[in-house]
Amino acid sequence: MKKELLSQIKEPEQIMELGYEELRQLAEEIRGHIINTVVKTGGHLAPSLGVVDLTLALYKVFNFKKDKLIWDVGHQAYAHKIITRGIEKFKTLRQFGGISGFPRIEESPYDFFGVGHSSTSISAALGFAVARDLKGEDYKIVAVIGDGSMTAGMAFEALNHAGDLEKDLIVVLNDNEMSISKSVGALSAFLSRKLADKRFVKFKQDLKRWLKQIPKVGEEILNYARRSEESLKNLFTPGILFEAIGFYYIGPVDGHDIKKMVKVFKQVKEIEKPVLIHVLTKKGKGYPPAEEDPMSFHGIGKLKPINSKKEGPPTYSEVFGKTLCDLAAKDKRIVAITAAMPQGTGLSGFMHQFPERFFDVGICEQHAITFAAGLAAQGYKPVVAIYSTFLQRGYDQVIHDVCLQNLPVVFCLDRSGLVGEDGPTHHGSFDLSFLRVIPNITIMAPKDEGELQNMLYTALLMDAPVAIRYPRGRGKGVELQDSYEKISVPSGEVLKEGDDLLIITIGSMVDYALEAAALAKQRAEINVCVYNSRFIKPLPPELFDIVNNFDKIIIVEENALIGGFSSGILELLNDNNMLSGKRIIRLGIPDRFIEHGTQSQLRSMLGLDSEGIFKKICELAM
Amino acid sequence: MKKELLSQIKEPEQIMELGYEELRQLAEEIRGHIINTVVKTGGHLAPSLGVVDLTLALYKVFNFKKDKLIWDVGHQAYAHKIITRGIEKFKTLRQFGGISGFPRIEESPYDFFGVGHSSTSISAALGFAVARDLKGEDYKIVAVIGDGSMTAGMAFEALNHAGDLEKDLIVVLNDNEMSISKSVGALSAFLSRKLADKRFVKFKQDLKRWLKQIPKVGEEILNYARRSEESLKNLFTPGILFEAIGFYYIGPVDGHDIKKMVKVFKQVKEIEKPVLIHVLTKKGKGYPPAEEDPMSFHGIGKLKPINSKKEGPPTYSEVFGKTLCDLAAKDKRIVAITAAMPQGTGLSGFMHQFPERFFDVGICEQHAITFAAGLAAQGYKPVVAIYSTFLQRGYDQVIHDVCLQNLPVVFCLDRSGLVGEDGPTHHGSFDLSFLRVIPNITIMAPKDEGELQNMLYTALLMDAPVAIRYPRGRGKGVELQDSYEKISVPSGEVLKEGDDLLIITIGSMVDYALEAAALAKQRAEINVCVYNSRFIKPLPPELFDIVNNFDKIIIVEENALIGGFSSGILELLNDNNMLSGKRIIRLGIPDRFIEHGTQSQLRSMLGLDSEGIFKKICELAM
Repeated sequence: MKKELLSQIKEPEQIMELGYEELRQLAEEIRGHIINTVVKTGGHLAPSLGVVDLTLALYKVFNFKKDKLIWDVGHQAYAHKIITRGIEKFKTLRQFGGISGFPRIEESPYDFFGVGHSSTSISAALGFAVARDLKGEDYKIVAVIGDGSMTAGMAFEALNHAGDLEKDLIVVLNDNEMSISKSVGALSAFLSRKLADKRFVKFKQDLKRWLKQIPKVGEEILNYARRSEESLKNLFTPGILFEAIGFYYIGPVDGHDIKKMVKVFKQVKEIEKPVLIHVLTKKGKGYPPAEEDPMSFHGIGKLKPINSKKEGPPTYSEVFGKTLCDLAAKDKRIVAITAAMPQGTGLSGFMHQFPERFFDVGICEQHAITFAAGLAAQGYKPVVAIYSTFLQRGYDQVIHDVCLQNLPVVFCLDRSGLVGEDGPTHHGSFDLSFLRVIPNITIMAPKDEGELQNMLYTALLMDAPVAIRYPRGRGKGVELQDSYEKISVPSGEVLKEGDDLLIITIGSMVDYALEAAALAKQRAEINVCVYNSRFIKPLPPELFDIVNNFDKIIIVEENALIGGFSSGILELLNDNNMLSGKRIIRLGIPDRFIEHGTQSQLRSMLGLDSEGIFKKICELAM
Repeated sequence: MKKELLSQIKEPEQIMELGYEELRQLAEEIRGHIINTVVKTGGHLAPSLGVVDLTLALYKVFNFKKDKLIWDVGHQAYAHKIITRGIEKFKTLRQFGGISGFPRIEESPYDFFGVGHSSTSISAALGFAVARDLKGEDYKIVAVIGDGSMTAGMAFEALNHAGDLEKDLIVVLNDNEMSISKSVGALSAFLSRKLADKRFVKFKQDLKRWLKQIPKVGEEILNYARRSEESLKNLFTPGILFEAIGFYYIGPVDGHDIKKMVKVFKQVKEIEKPVLIHVLTKKGKGYPPAEEDPMSFHGIGKLKPINSKKEGPPTYSEVFGKTLCDLAAKDKRIVAITAAMPQGTGLSGFMHQFPERFFDVGICEQHAITFAAGLAAQGYKPVVAIYSTFLQRGYDQVIHDVCLQNLPVVFCLDRSGLVGEDGPTHHGSFDLSFLRVIPNITIMAPKDEGELQNMLYTALLMDAPVAIRYPRGRGKGVELQDSYEKISVPSGEVLKEGDDLLIITIGSMVDYALEAAALAKQRAEINVCVYNSRFIKPLPPELFDIVNNFDKIIIVEENALIGGFSSGILELLNDNNMLSGKRIIRLGIPDRFIEHGTQSQLRSMLGLDSEGIFKKICELAM
């Protein structure tokens, strides 16, 4: 048995000294550690396994004590994490107090730029390149970006600018022919060599035919062309797109052949212009289940024994997907749009059941939303299923294309509030604040799966923009309905009567509020009234009557305390001169970026659970 | 003299019947009307003059009673407006109560999709195309997009998706080789046939050399190639980029040759796939001053007689630009970034003075911000000068790349608040609300030019994200400084003492508040205290003491009333249990999209001027 190598790597630069045999061994060791850790902690398994060889080839050629490595999305950076943090720290991956699942500047001197969302790496790397040249320094900058991330307009903007500036900059295009789910778009067809199957083949045929028309000469030239180093064919690699916007293109290169990659990277180090190296990798490499079904192994929770029982109720995403299918069966105007998240948002079923009404636009939130607006302008009812944090990418489109024109687009915001282990880049903490300011939009949040169903049903009956926000994870297991109920817009509900104080709450916090009210009764004989507002905007007018009955009010939401649900209530009460004599405590996400951890750890830390609310009840009731 | 034609056009479809002579005459008439109106009303002169011929060619070939025409940005749609609204309505262009400067669904049945920001047209058009095909209807959809708009990532996202869906869709690329200012980026070099000058010429040379190596054959083939319809050359038009992502490319076509365009459009009507027609136009066509200096005639105010005196104090943009130059001369770490608005944001001087530290990234707000974050991560002090409304395009980047990493990027938000005639797509009504929720950011707003200077100076001394927001238009004429003063962060100032009630205000509203206070004293003997908070986030702690002295408070801001400055104060006072017994009136932009009109008309309409504030003072003092 070979001697273990990883434990001997005390600092990343040692990798520069390793031979190819050792690098291959190290790759195997790292893959093993990734698999062993991620099945325990959860995380992005398939993407990280796919780039282990690439990562080692980069560390072999570049010296990241001075060179800079910028990851895109960052969910493929586990090998980098193992190399730079060591295996013991890596075992704390995504755990509360442990290391992040993404690169973060403050976590390691080798994390040059933090990330979590896609398609930022080339922009950041170009900023680095400009800074380096302004300072007159000398080092290499490498951005590693996936083919999925490359479909985002932002990546194109950055490529275009980099091509124009002609900076010394290396972009490694990690092409696994599949971003998060399947890649979409013409660019992806182009990259994945479908171009070679279609357009290039057609060109070659045209050229052949054309040359053959010149009697007895054509064949000779074709043979010459085959031999010629200046072969025309080179012009028709996938690279022509990148060449066109000013990059020197190299590839495709086998992303699991470390030796070949090292050779290419060494050559590329000598070029002082924008270079794009097209590397082909296989997601899930080295872990057969992930190689076979990389979509399911993209991001995983902790793995359970195969025959364990079903874990519990369906997720909100699943309930959303199922309900949308039901409604779409009855209304042909319903269409569904996702930005590269058909599975994550629960739309897989819809995708199979209504393929002609389903649109995965790739990692293109901006386009997704204006595309939806176009459909709505022509009488359709688009439902944009999107994670709360990614809606930030299409904010202007929500304002300018949807709400200004008052078009009936329904935004279903999955992963709102605290998402857990993915941490600060992925928490959906801000949506109520940034959406609430937009005129014409109605914003709702369901307390459970049944309410989600009714809200979706209600939203699709409205002729205006609507956002429905719900949390990541499983519902409560309330029985799902087959027929839905229209909710009066806007209206809430008193879920528990009580005289001592009032809790106004919404969405994911309703249950915690009810539990806290029960604790208050049980432990302190305090009678709490719990009101589920259901609507964030507009607020239900019945709130006036309810609020009138109480001097002590707690408002609870799983959103930033700045500008969110409780701020809306303060505005309403103030503007109706109803604040005097009231004592209002607001409970929500404080004004800082929230770290990673399980949802319940984070809730507990922030007092956003039944105990936390109970504490506030006691404070206020004193 | 020829008979006037325009007045005979009662409905746009009549244009289909006109001959080429008549079309040319009509084009001249329309150009005349555009010039005559825009010199009176202000507006986008050069872009609209450039596409008159193109517009008529489209109306000649397509029947927009059933076909759909979708404009990008929309500031080039004046010919379309004249054709569809008639000349009398056109004369009300951009005036309060008159027609908008942009297409708007509610204004005409020929405005199929509203617009104002760039690069939305292909996304919307693709939505239309999908809707048409789902319904089984039969009509053509034409999107007209400029070369500048094409540099935005969003346009690329849409092209990529459209190429993939292979929908029947026509994109007219209106290429005037200059978007709002000069086009930037490799794509633009590519489009503007610099490719032909460089890459293509190199390829042709390579090919020639290669063919000549085959004795006596090469020349023959080259001659053949020149004659051949299947000439290789066709493969090296600018079209290859669009062909690569699935569009059928036609062009370039002379955008002032109506007959040629009509011929092309007729052919294109027969193609049922994505087609891109590359049309070359000249901005300002037909108006020599605008042809010669289209940048200055891009968007203009009402024209003044040439020798009229200087109008008054410099604009906020100019003060910003001048001050940044001063500061940059002393600090080499300061770099400036704009997204295609060097003139509008006041950066022209910086551009000339510090070309190596100036970056115009094109209409690419997303990239601009993350590029700035990259520079900041490497020790630079990037200043992103951007219109408030366009910052919405880079919202996620502000959160994810700048604020989460607490990087010292300074956002200078020009055109905050009510911008006037450009209307709802351009008002900067929301920035305080959508920025305030982001952790780590400091937000300021100057009351005048001097305070802008000190705030910029202060922001650049801070090692954290800062936004400074200021209005469109001229300052007050306060004397500009050469040395600046660091403002304590956060601190405000009492500008006027008074016992009866307190006005807390910020930025552009400070002067109106002072005027209102003077009115109150003069007309009603009410003594108003006026406090300039200067900071929106964090709020100055001294507010507590000041607020403690008053029961009656008016908060005034030029931002949406939802989630903005006054909401922040409500949050602060509530969370410190200071609201009881207070009567607070909030004055700001109500929860609807605000129409176009002059800034003073809109202010007056919304009560956001001295009379409006005075009215509230009286209400509250009763």
